[in-house]
Amino acid sequence: MPDFRHKLEAFENRYPGREYKIEIVAPEFTSVCPKTGQPDFGTVTISYIPKAKCIELKSLKLYLQSFRNEGIFYENVTNVILDDLAAVLDPQWLKIEAAFSARGGITETVTVQHVAAV
Amino acid sequence: MPDFRHKLEAFENRYPGREYKIEIVAPEFTSVCPKTGQPDFGTVTISYIPKAKCIELKSLKLYLQSFRNEGIFYENVTNVILDDLAAVLDPQWLKIEAAFSARGGITETVTVQHVAAV
Amino acid sequence: MPDFRHKLEAFENRYPGREYKIEIVAPEFTSVCPKTGQPDFGTVTISYIPKAKCIELKSLKLYLQSFRNEGIFYENVTNVILDDLAAVLDPQWLKIEAAFSARGGITETVTVQHVAAV
Amino acid sequence: MPDFRHKLEAFENRYPGREYKIEIVAPEFTSVCPKTGQPDFGTVTISYIPKAKCIELKSLKLYLQSFRNEGIFYENVTNVILDDLAAVLDPQWLKIEAAFSARGGITETVTVQHVAAV
Amino acid sequence: MPDFRHKLEAFENRYPGREYKIEIVAPEFTSVCPKTGQPDFGTVTISYIPKAKCIELKSLKLYLQSFRNEGIFYENVTNVILDDLAAVLDPQWLKIEAAFSARGGITETVTVQHVAAV
Amino acid sequence: MPDFRHKLEAFENRYPGREYKIEIVAPEFTSVCPKTGQPDFGTVTISYIPKAKCIELKSLKLYLQSFRNEGIFYENVTNVILDDLAAVLDPQWLKIEAAFSARGGITETVTVQHVAAV
Amino acid sequence: MPDFRHKLEAFENRYPGREYKIEIVAPEFTSVCPKTGQPDFGTVTISYIPKAKCIELKSLKLYLQSFRNEGIFYENVTNVILDDLAAVLDPQWLKIEAAFSARGGITETVTVQHVAAV
Amino acid sequence: MPDFRHKLEAFENRYPGREYKIEIVAPEFTSVCPKTGQPDFGTVTISYIPKAKCIELKSLKLYLQSFRNEGIFYENVTNVILDDLAAVLDPQWLKIEAAFSARGGITETVTVQHVAAV
Amino acid sequence: MPDFRHKLEAFENRYPGREYKIEIVAPEFTSVCPKTGQPDFGTVTISYIPKAKCIELKSLKLYLQSFRNEGIFYENVTNVILDDLAAVLDPQWLKIEAAFSARGGITETVTVQHVAAV
Amino acid sequence: MPDFRHKLEAFENRYPGREYKIEIVAPEFTSVCPKTGQPDFGTVTISYIPKAKCIELKSLKLYLQSFRNEGIFYENVTNVILDDLAAVLDPQWLKIEAAFSARGGITETVTVQHVAAV
Repeated sequence: MPDFRHKLEAFENRYPGREYKIEIVAPEFTSVCPKTGQPDFGTVTISYIPKAKCIELKSLKLYLQSFRNEGIFYENVTNVILDDLAAVLDPQWLKIEAAFSARGGITETVTVQHVAAV
Repeated sequence: MPDFRHKLEAFENRYPGREYKIEIVAPEFTSVCPKTGQPDFGTVTISYIPKAKCIELKSLKLYLQSFRNEGIFYENVTNVILDDLAAVLDPQWLKIEAAFSARGGITETVTVQHVAAV
Repeated sequence: MPDFRHKLEAFENRYPGREYKIEIVAPEFTSVCPKTGQPDFGTVTISYIPKAKCIELKSLKLYLQSFRNEGIFYENVTNVILDDLAAVLDPQWLKIEAAFSARGGITETVTVQHVAAV
Repeated sequence: MPDFRHKLEAFENRYPGREYKIEIVAPEFTSVCPKTGQPDFGTVTISYIPKAKCIELKSLKLYLQSFRNEGIFYENVTNVILDDLAAVLDPQWLKIEAAFSARGGITETVTVQHVAAV
Repeated sequence: MPDFRHKLEAFENRYPGREYKIEIVAPEFTSVCPKTGQPDFGTVTISYIPKAKCIELKSLKLYLQSFRNEGIFYENVTNVILDDLAAVLDPQWLKIEAAFSARGGITETVTVQHVAAV
Repeated sequence: MPDFRHKLEAFENRYPGREYKIEIVAPEFTSVCPKTGQPDFGTVTISYIPKAKCIELKSLKLYLQSFRNEGIFYENVTNVILDDLAAVLDPQWLKIEAAFSARGGITETVTVQHVAAV
Repeated sequence: MPDFRHKLEAFENRYPGREYKIEIVAPEFTSVCPKTGQPDFGTVTISYIPKAKCIELKSLKLYLQSFRNEGIFYENVTNVILDDLAAVLDPQWLKIEAAFSARGGITETVTVQHVAAV
Repeated sequence: MPDFRHKLEAFENRYPGREYKIEIVAPEFTSVCPKTGQPDFGTVTISYIPKAKCIELKSLKLYLQSFRNEGIFYENVTNVILDDLAAVLDPQWLKIEAAFSARGGITETVTVQHVAAV
Repeated sequence: MPDFRHKLEAFENRYPGREYKIEIVAPEFTSVCPKTGQPDFGTVTISYIPKAKCIELKSLKLYLQSFRNEGIFYENVTNVILDDLAAVLDPQWLKIEAAFSARGGITETVTVQHVAAV
Repeated sequence: MPDFRHKLEAFENRYPGREYKIEIVAPEFTSVCPKTGQPDFGTVTISYIPKAKCIELKSLKLYLQSFRNEGIFYENVTNVILDDLAAVLDPQWLKIEAAFSARGGITETVTVQHVAAV
């Protein structure tokens, strides 16, 4: 699995005691199919409830761009993004939804959640 | 009932312990009405939570194309796809929604779910 | 109330032990206002979970066309369709939604459900 | 051909010397297919530049409703409406566009114009 | 508060023992801002589950038109319509949603419900 | 015909030698049908190429509101607005398009132009 | 090139002296890629000005269905349909537009016209 | 944090004993990014259930305009608006959703709620 | 009139002998009404055929942002942008379309063109 | 300028004497900004009237993918694609429209045509 986690930067949440939701939509995600070498295109939607940290948007953009020439399956890239953001933010709740463009007339969307242990 | 189950191929889920959802939309499904011989057109949406296996998309495409010249009713084709995918994937949860184009000014959508036994 | 129930035909459900949903949308419904004699237009949406029987679509089309020159209020036609389909199909669950076009700048939608007695 | 022309009423154009356009859209047109007996549904759009007379909208509504149980082909009904309105209004210019709903998965739109002789 | 309640007429519900929903959308509501004297425009959506009575649509149209030159705030007009319909229909459940057009680049929607006492 | 022309105010065009177009859309127009007394609703679109003067928007808003309780036919109100704006602005070119909401399931749009004499 | 021309039937145009346009949209066209064997899907739009004959819609539907299992390129199928309809109808003007669904993330639309010789 | 709270004005709720919802959408919000100095644009949606007071719309408009040249992060501005409205209205329930336009191809929406203590 | 022309930068057109069109859409334009002091919002669309120079996009963004706190009428700002771009680019053809958001329920769009002298 | 022209393959036009149009839409184009190193995304629309040759779609897909990691300005990439396709196809007419996603809140579309010399 590719490791771009170090590119993610967080900043301090000014309202740590309050439960609120942040949703980020990145419609220009692209990676490469490891089987055919053809580019894949998709929209990545990141939703989370922060604890102490929020994701810095510019570092997130650069992190997502790192997959541009990476060969990786839909299911795996979605889970990798979840793991990386969970590690960097330690959020109360986190959801990744990756909706990929049609290939062979078929589209696929992968959705995965992370919930902080109590 | 037609038997195209052998065309479906699965690959190993890299995140088997994690509950996540995969949704696949195939808008170019076509079969034949067994009563009139006229072609039917529809969109098949497959949603599932994998256990050990994920469906390989190219094999799914070829599987769905097998119905192209098959005479089969809306209600039956939806249940056949459910049974075939449930057998091949043994998923935690699986839903098939098949939305057929208008015939005689009337459209029909059939939805069926499979839940793994505890 | 008009009685067109005999026009409805059912066929045997091949998957009677499985709980699945069928939704039928008929956007070309027309009847006549009993007060003004003016034609009414609407979309009738039928959703049901079958037990032993499914509705045959061609007979349903002819059944719905029977209201074409019938004078009947919105509220009543929706309930009549519910009663007729419940009697013919004996479904586990049935919902009728009839959405009528604007009259005097006002639209009306009537929704009614039937649940099988336990 | 059906003859409902007498149902159309005109009123005096208050601005006869000025070239202006009136467009009327009637989305609830219905007639019957003379071959199959099945109802047809469509949207009739009437555009005209009046000379001395404008069409009275309520009479137009009743005129269009007259086709409700009439068996007539798409091409003919469009031309009949053109001839009737041209005869009643004697307009400078008149266009009828009739867009019919899908039958057998196919839609048809017929468009015909009338220009006053110089 | 304006009192137009006497304009509302009800008719007998033919299916009083059955719980069903009626939704009415009136997109041509207009009143006057009591502060600025400027006209307000909005869409009033009325949903209810009838007991013994249903609202007669033509009387409802005339009732809503009564507010045309009435100076009244968004919050109040929504509650007045709720009170008037609740009094006339004595419904099992009633909801009024009034969505007003933008003023100063800002839109407001007021939603209020009534539930019959047990 | 109603006379609200005095309510319209113009301001000096700062670019009188340049041919440019101004389009104004007023979607909250309402008047009254002189035959039935029922309110009419519509969208008035005003397009013009100014000569020495431009229309002041607030005065235009108040001018259009003047028709609120006025009984006037679609065809006439459109021509009255054209005449009033042409008189006040003396534009190089002016077009009024008034699109009225459905009555009896039928909508009407009236379009009229004014071109300055050479 | 496939030859299904004999499936097309025409009927007599009742208004042969009048220039009017007929547009037919068939969104359920499917054929097979001769290179890959994969099914193609598209929408075929047929527009024409008739002379003595109009196309019979049911025969057109069956004609278009003939391409279902035929291997043929986008450019060729569009020109074949043009040639066949021109031969059967001898129209004053005829246009075929075939818009195919995405393959490899790319869509293609082919448009060709026929004009009667003077 | 900027302090514009004094600009907010409330008026007395005429229906204090009744639980109803008010939703306000302000699509013309703009502030400045404190990091880059670039303007941000967004839509602020305010939903609340009033107790004794409702927000006066004109004061709300002026309050939101105060952020026009203020440097503030997305997460903070959303929480500041929540705190200010909660302090001024003391509502039963309050939700702020701020959806910002794309920056670097990425959009962000922040949602936060306030519930009155029991 | 405000003078921000010096903020615009051009770069050399690599294809000066070829007639091609560049269209730029800037949906986040905002200025201030000189009469009321209220902010205006709009979308500025710039289309041009270059001669020797193309506009540099970042300088254009900063130029358009300069109007943020400037009091200027719709008609004037559109003409100022035309004059500034025509001076900096000396294009073969240039069109500015500025579509402003609703004020008092009314929207205005101003369109102006520049054609190079022969 | 990058040179990927050798990747383009053409096939023989079966209808060379007939003037018809082919439009190809490729919504998954991506290249890199030569100034910032950031990825650009856009939709490339290619329209042409063939003479002796048509473009082979798979080679076109691979050709367009070649720009994936290439640093090139919007204006230049559009003209390069025009030159390459004109050289390979020698078409009667050719148009390239490249619509790029927003950067800094601003989108740009470049359109260029080629017409065969007589």
